[in-house]
Amino acid sequence: MKKLINAPDAVVAEALAGLAAAHPDLLRVHFNPDYIVRADAPVRGKVALISGGGSGHEPLHGGFVGRGMLDAACPGAIFTSPVPDQMLAAARAVHGGCGVLQVVKNYTGDVMNFEMAAELAAAEGITVASVVTNDDVAVRDSLYTAGRRGVGVTVLLEKIVGAAAEAGADLATCQRIADQVNAQGRSMGMALTSCTVPHVGRPTFDLPADEMEIGIGIHGEPGRTRLPLAPAAAVAELLARPIIDDLPLRRGDHVLAFVNGMGGTPLIELYLMFKELTGILAGQGITISRSLVGSYITSLEMAGCSFTLLKLDDELTRLWDAPVLTPALRWGM
Amino acid sequence: MKKLINAPDAVVAEALAGLAAAHPDLLRVHFNPDYIVRADAPVRGKVALISGGGSGHEPLHGGFVGRGMLDAACPGAIFTSPVPDQMLAAARAVHGGCGVLQVVKNYTGDVMNFEMAAELAAAEGITVASVVTNDDVAVRDSLYTAGRRGVGVTVLLEKIVGAAAEAGADLATCQRIADQVNAQGRSMGMALTSCTVPHVGRPTFDLPADEMEIGIGIHGEPGRTRLPLAPAAAVAELLARPIIDDLPLRRGDHVLAFVNGMGGTPLIELYLMFKELTGILAGQGITISRSLVGSYITSLEMAGCSFTLLKLDDELTRLWDAPVLTPALRWGM
Repeated sequence: MKKLINAPDAVVAEALAGLAAAHPDLLRVHFNPDYIVRADAPVRGKVALISGGGSGHEPLHGGFVGRGMLDAACPGAIFTSPVPDQMLAAARAVHGGCGVLQVVKNYTGDVMNFEMAAELAAAEGITVASVVTNDDVAVRDSLYTAGRRGVGVTVLLEKIVGAAAEAGADLATCQRIADQVNAQGRSMGMALTSCTVPHVGRPTFDLPADEMEIGIGIHGEPGRTRLPLAPAAAVAELLARPIIDDLPLRRGDHVLAFVNGMGGTPLIELYLMFKELTGILAGQGITISRSLVGSYITSLEMAGCSFTLLKLDDELTRLWDAPVLTPALRWGM
Repeated sequence: MKKLINAPDAVVAEALAGLAAAHPDLLRVHFNPDYIVRADAPVRGKVALISGGGSGHEPLHGGFVGRGMLDAACPGAIFTSPVPDQMLAAARAVHGGCGVLQVVKNYTGDVMNFEMAAELAAAEGITVASVVTNDDVAVRDSLYTAGRRGVGVTVLLEKIVGAAAEAGADLATCQRIADQVNAQGRSMGMALTSCTVPHVGRPTFDLPADEMEIGIGIHGEPGRTRLPLAPAAAVAELLARPIIDDLPLRRGDHVLAFVNGMGGTPLIELYLMFKELTGILAGQGITISRSLVGSYITSLEMAGCSFTLLKLDDELTRLWDAPVLTPALRWGM
């Protein structure tokens, strides 16, 4: 196992300390229980957005804490759900009197623990709503989920609903927009290599040198199929078609196209995959009106990528364009 | 070789097409000769900044084209210098009547070709100045260089001098600031794994599972030494001490601390390394007043990282903070 770490048990806490040291202007990190809050929390009169999940998907979620996006993020151990105590403490820290919206990726542990935290917060008088993202078209159920997994749409949702909350939308409006983003977005991923969880010390799965896994999950869960390595153009088809068919997208639709790296894939390959995606969508009469290319929801050092397509309307486009100031996404301020 | 590509010879052109498609608001790509220019080029009355080098280091340099940073970037083949024709065409495209500053990393081919381009441009009446970055403390000469290699400081220099040019600084002032940044910055890198150049098809070097290379170059050139794998804290010492000693940095100095990923290293490890660096600098009485953590000057999918420290003064800090709008660095607009 080749990693820039000290000890497997210390990885998350030490990386959080680094995040805090690098971005004192944007966020604060609280330890025991672990959570990250924006530097100016709580913001009075604003709906608070809280997300979280296992670590190992950086910059998700801690890298999205800041103005115009998340108020708080709760990092679990690597690929392990955070616990209700973290979520409750985060809710107390960021609640500004207008309620809390939890952004939860659909994994059994995350859903259960966020539900428990919501009940505990409600008992303290904090109104809590939730959205559970389930945008992965690859598989119905998996090792970690009942139903579809929550993946790339989570990033876009946190940005878009974060902008709505920043602009003063109330909890019901934030919930409506969050539900809409989840309903209008779909993703599919693939892997060229496995990742290695530090405290396990060996690759999560074996993938021969001449094969790739299509439909992989962000913890290395099995996907739809294993295939011989193929050119980027063929890989792009395998990822894009199931999304287009499932939404479905139709001629004349406008989308946000998000090409995401799994952590070990260089940017030159992601832009090449984006070029393939533009060709496929153009052939269908679908317009890419916004885009995002980079490694934003990762699986440690896994090599591979995912596509996420989000059908846009004027409101979602305006919210996407709104200023944001976080470690991983920043523009307009 | 596991890569998201179509054919080795098509990688650069296809990735450039993706870059253009993803950022039509920021830049334009010209093919044959290949160069990238900011969308509003030429900007009349502004010094134009041009950089370039082999591809495979993305986002360097194309990802830094845009307002407040580079006017143009010239991408060569993977790990191969661009040719004078590209640089000359780029200079013609971005020259705004106030001269051109070439930002050149110290590699033999790059230096020679940028010099030739400068002569050709001068013959057309375009005033050209140059800065050659040589911030790598690891080795004196290497496979690709006479003298020290240009690495991480190049990113910081392009941002800082780009801000000066955007604010209306003349060519002599841009040159002065560029020379100052190069003089006050030092870097050192390390690798856990090799990368594979697409048209070669096998790793550039062999690195056993229990070893790391300290002082690696961004093309996989040999470094100072091979050592057994060590904890992150020890790796951080091996990178930071030679920089601190070489500059030298002294108690009371303020620095921009840049922890860079080599392409295959996940962000969680980079933040962990940043935490180690903060401890080392704090112990020396050196203040990190600005920071950058991420994969900005890479070696394809190599796993590893580099540290760059730049001694700051008020002018450099103000220029670093100035608004920038490029694919890879953006804030303030």
